[in-house]
Amino acid sequence: MISEAMLKLGTTRSCIRELFEYGNQQAAIVGRENVYDYSLGNPSIPAPAQVKASINAILDEVNSLSIHGYTSAPGALDARKAVADDLNARFDTSIRPENIFLSCGAAPALISVIRALAVEDAEILAIAPFFPEYRPFVENNGCKFVVVPADTQQFQIRMDKLEEAINSHTQAVIVNSPNNPSGVVYTKETLVSLANVLTRKAKEFGHPIYIIADEPYRELAYDGVEVSFIPSIYPDTVICYSWSKSLSLPGERIGYVCVPDQVTDSAQLFAAVCGAARIIGHVCAPSLQQLTVARCVSLRPDVEAYDRNRKTLYDALTSYGYECAKPKGAFYMFVKAPGGNAQAFSDRAKEKNLLIVPGGDFGCPDFFRISTSVDHGMILRSLPVFEELIKTQV
Amino acid sequence: MISEAMLKLGTTRSCIRELFEYGNQQAAIVGRENVYDYSLGNPSIPAPAQVKASINAILDEVNSLSIHGYTSAPGALDARKAVADDLNARFDTSIRPENIFLSCGAAPALISVIRALAVEDAEILAIAPFFPEYRPFVENNGCKFVVVPADTQQFQIRMDKLEEAINSHTQAVIVNSPNNPSGVVYTKETLVSLANVLTRKAKEFGHPIYIIADEPYRELAYDGVEVSFIPSIYPDTVICYSWSKSLSLPGERIGYVCVPDQVTDSAQLFAAVCGAARIIGHVCAPSLQQLTVARCVSLRPDVEAYDRNRKTLYDALTSYGYECAKPKGAFYMFVKAPGGNAQAFSDRAKEKNLLIVPGGDFGCPDFFRISTSVDHGMILRSLPVFEELIKTQV
Repeated sequence: MISEAMLKLGTTRSCIRELFEYGNQQAAIVGRENVYDYSLGNPSIPAPAQVKASINAILDEVNSLSIHGYTSAPGALDARKAVADDLNARFDTSIRPENIFLSCGAAPALISVIRALAVEDAEILAIAPFFPEYRPFVENNGCKFVVVPADTQQFQIRMDKLEEAINSHTQAVIVNSPNNPSGVVYTKETLVSLANVLTRKAKEFGHPIYIIADEPYRELAYDGVEVSFIPSIYPDTVICYSWSKSLSLPGERIGYVCVPDQVTDSAQLFAAVCGAARIIGHVCAPSLQQLTVARCVSLRPDVEAYDRNRKTLYDALTSYGYECAKPKGAFYMFVKAPGGNAQAFSDRAKEKNLLIVPGGDFGCPDFFRISTSVDHGMILRSLPVFEELIKTQV
Repeated sequence: MISEAMLKLGTTRSCIRELFEYGNQQAAIVGRENVYDYSLGNPSIPAPAQVKASINAILDEVNSLSIHGYTSAPGALDARKAVADDLNARFDTSIRPENIFLSCGAAPALISVIRALAVEDAEILAIAPFFPEYRPFVENNGCKFVVVPADTQQFQIRMDKLEEAINSHTQAVIVNSPNNPSGVVYTKETLVSLANVLTRKAKEFGHPIYIIADEPYRELAYDGVEVSFIPSIYPDTVICYSWSKSLSLPGERIGYVCVPDQVTDSAQLFAAVCGAARIIGHVCAPSLQQLTVARCVSLRPDVEAYDRNRKTLYDALTSYGYECAKPKGAFYMFVKAPGGNAQAFSDRAKEKNLLIVPGGDFGCPDFFRISTSVDHGMILRSLPVFEELIKTQV
């Protein structure tokens, strides 16, 4: 007898993945150069050269048992110290190595925090548009998933809707800025307003309401925009980070949870994260990568290629008449679908081998997502298709 | 508000880990050479040279995006094919790459299978003595944990007790051979009897009862003993494997789940494992390690050092009067505690800086575990302490 819920999760492919697989099939038929695949959010710039140099150096300098052996469950202390030092140097904080739990990427980091907060009737909020996997992560780890409707103009946060969504069971709000799928960076004003609402509501209900800051795109920002460090604005913030995008290491599964001392019940929450990590099988992040990120923690990505793509796409699409909040971070754009139905528009685009992700799973069915982490030549080849599609929209 | 269950899991340290930490503290006081630490089951032989050579070659030959990028959720097809080919060559099977789900080590492999089987009122059996983490893995992933009492003479399986433990809710039996903590390898006769009981009970209750074969120690066997390939004896066997011990890569979190086609509802079970992996955050095993094990899959460990330790300890301890089933695999011995209370005996040993793990958490409170994956010199220094302890036992 097999769990129906797990079977469903294993057989329902995400629309992103479906489009990607369709693109591969079409490429075999019409040629790769005639498929315009904007589906996946996979880094398209290689890892910095220092990553390779670091791995080589570790293999030469460190003995095998120390490279490949178990570390303690939350990670090697040296690696955790390197992460804490880097945060403190950048954000003027006092984070200790003991506040850092190195994780096998951002997904288990998030899930560990979710399970740590999964008391009876717990609810966790996400602000539309949101990364679609938040829903199964929350719903299958003991909490109710509650969506705060989107600000479809600027993709900041509708504080009235946020406040309506909070009740005595609200344990946390997932905040993802720079945002997937909108590419928008929450302004400091937005975050201060958010902090004010949460502070007031936490007081009203007599327990903390945490922010879970999901920050894989923290280092990917453009136009000199400031990406606020949320713990400096709202003390009850837990950070979930991954080097997937900043070092282009998505396959290596290396990230962290940070529970600063300033967080209410910090020690207990950190311990509960450790407990949750244990029963989802996440003790000891990949050890060679722990050593690698410790050596590369101060590197910042060269985002010029993403920025160029962003500008080309934004300028072209808006010139054709598409509406889009200008992205300032991550590597996505979230565009209003001409005609208002993103699924129908995506289906039309698919007929022309242009693969764009309808926004229903992100909580915004009127919008589609395109990844700007793609080949620039493909963008140039695809622009006439974007133009034709909006011109022929009835 | 923090989950009490997760907090408890995060604050209750295993007795293994506690002894290990105590050993480190004592080493600082009395000197490392005067602490005899048999607590951890960490490989003490380095990874084969070919692991380092493979990583170096991958870094030189493969482009960064292919090394460090996301693979599909169950892993890169080439790596899965390498694993399937190796199994087929060794065990005369017809396993396809599509039967293999590469995982972040054995723990999430097991947990994915457990959650895939977590229907209402599901029960999962473990045969004492068992790896203590099985209990939290099962209990916190939707199933009831049921212990089959140990055969404390040979540490094979008491079929009468097994049969008593099975009911209509029994979904699976975890089988771990070579066994942690006993070091015993189940004989073919044991496994055939087990298969007969399960086949009969599955028929009686009208649904499959799976074996979850937890096999991190498969390649660690001595005295030419045969480690049976369980799927060849019982078709409804799912394998959970890890290269932690066979390639001395425990920190790298790389293993697999194999659901062969012969398994009842194979496709659905595999899909449910994929679904479960998704919501515990385990899609895409560490990508560099996927490529590494694909190149090293046919290597077998040089277990000479473990074997030497095993012989030295077994011969010495039995000559002093200790009782112990002779281990034929893994790197553990499970010894009857003089006086019958392993906790008390372990406490006495601790006073002499001899760290041995009492068997309560393994389901056998009369026995203690020692790891033979240790320094040979430490063994020699520790023998007089073992001798003194049994002679002074009242």
